[in-house]
Amino acid sequence: MKLLRFGPKGQEKPGILDADGHVRDLSDHVTDFAGATVSLEALDTLRSVDVAALPLVSEPGRIGSCLAAVPNFFCIGLNYAKHAEETGAEPPKEPILFSKATSALSGPFDPVIIPRGSVKGDWEVELGVVIGRTALYVSEDDALDYVAGYCTINDVSEREFQIEKGGQWMKGKSAPTFGPTGPYLVTADEVPDPQNLRVTLTLNGETVQDSNTDDMIFTVREIVSYMSQFMELQPGDIIATGTPSGVGMGMKPQRFLKPGDVMEVEVEGLGRQRQVAEAAEI
Amino acid sequence: MKLLRFGPKGQEKPGILDADGHVRDLSDHVTDFAGATVSLEALDTLRSVDVAALPLVSEPGRIGSCLAAVPNFFCIGLNYAKHAEETGAEPPKEPILFSKATSALSGPFDPVIIPRGSVKGDWEVELGVVIGRTALYVSEDDALDYVAGYCTINDVSEREFQIEKGGQWMKGKSAPTFGPTGPYLVTADEVPDPQNLRVTLTLNGETVQDSNTDDMIFTVREIVSYMSQFMELQPGDIIATGTPSGVGMGMKPQRFLKPGDVMEVEVEGLGRQRQVAEAAEI
Repeated sequence: MKLLRFGPKGQEKPGILDADGHVRDLSDHVTDFAGATVSLEALDTLRSVDVAALPLVSEPGRIGSCLAAVPNFFCIGLNYAKHAEETGAEPPKEPILFSKATSALSGPFDPVIIPRGSVKGDWEVELGVVIGRTALYVSEDDALDYVAGYCTINDVSEREFQIEKGGQWMKGKSAPTFGPTGPYLVTADEVPDPQNLRVTLTLNGETVQDSNTDDMIFTVREIVSYMSQFMELQPGDIIATGTPSGVGMGMKPQRFLKPGDVMEVEVEGLGRQRQVAEAAEI
Repeated sequence: MKLLRFGPKGQEKPGILDADGHVRDLSDHVTDFAGATVSLEALDTLRSVDVAALPLVSEPGRIGSCLAAVPNFFCIGLNYAKHAEETGAEPPKEPILFSKATSALSGPFDPVIIPRGSVKGDWEVELGVVIGRTALYVSEDDALDYVAGYCTINDVSEREFQIEKGGQWMKGKSAPTFGPTGPYLVTADEVPDPQNLRVTLTLNGETVQDSNTDDMIFTVREIVSYMSQFMELQPGDIIATGTPSGVGMGMKPQRFLKPGDVMEVEVEGLGRQRQVAEAAEI
């Protein structure tokens, strides 16, 4: 299933893509997608819905983030060897874990707002993993059984806030609109191998990131198992699994977001995003 | 108002302390405390309730965390000079920000579960701040107008997970039961000066932390304003504002949690917690 949310911000309705790629309204079957409504059980119930019989949405308008809210917006850092290299860091021995404020969650086509005082806005295409079942002390063998699905994420980052303001990374990861997510939550049954997906990002039409999840240092299986040794993952949690090389911080000279820049962001099979950068209102 | 949640885990009801310190059932007026239901507006509505006329709960039983869930469980690091010193760190120039997984939220009297493989479990009494109104680019002058209330928090930590596993701190802050919160959400009107509250923690009856929020490097006002430059704070977000000296990691020799250890944790005026440490089931 390719699940999505359509409508004005804060008033989105749940939908599903039909066999022809059209949006169908799922409102009669689920209130929204977040937390328990994307548990494996809840998704199993949706599978019995006759999609062709649902109301056709001929003009869905705006597409929202594929989840209305998340219990946690986790991120894995430096998970592609070439990206670690471009930032000047050693490849990590264990997954690096941090988080974005959950209020960073944003629609895949919404503008990305460059925060006040920001001069180092940057892009990061990532494979997003959505948890479908409470996970604590899960083995690598079992880890993919806890995944509800996958989505495209742009882990938008502000490098000065992240690195030069002291302490931990979340300061540079959490501004409003810094988490474009979707357009679809693609259920795990439609992603036979999450370690073989092309990930690309273009800036103003120029390809700046182009890699494949087969280059990840830690696989989805390893990440979910590893994280579950330290915390209990919840249905609806998102894990952004790290970005490949090609971010602005790694370029020579460095290149950062300015108003009007257009990012097109895609993970193979999970749908394409497009954001225009805008300056924050003062 | 002193708001609380009572009942078995996952089935808590909202309650309020009456003038005699007894619990009254608020279920007819609010579904639960989390997110929008602790917004300043929602709390204002509750103020008109005649508490003495509410059903008396003569045996409240278990007390849960004072919030059912949080959009974010933020933490400030090294915010007391003597604590920074005991960890060997320089006092930070700007607030250090990180987060706990939201699933760490726990009742104030629930056992603290020492995770599998943990040998460096530690305690941290902290003043918790609960946000009551969406906050972005807020000035220090206005910052306290965005606070719904305050609560006692034990920011339970695993130092090996936090510091020796690579990367960011959240790995050592996020295990289930690592966030005892409450017993009460004390509304801001009852806390005239959040920078003059005694904070104490005893381990097996011995006082190990004893300080005052007047020793904070960054005040609540500064923290809320600062964070709002980097992210949009949401109603129901918790900020644990840092711990004073006296953690196990800072002792010579170091001392860490073992099964049976009893922590009593208090922030003046916000209520006292008590947790017994237990080993995780294998």
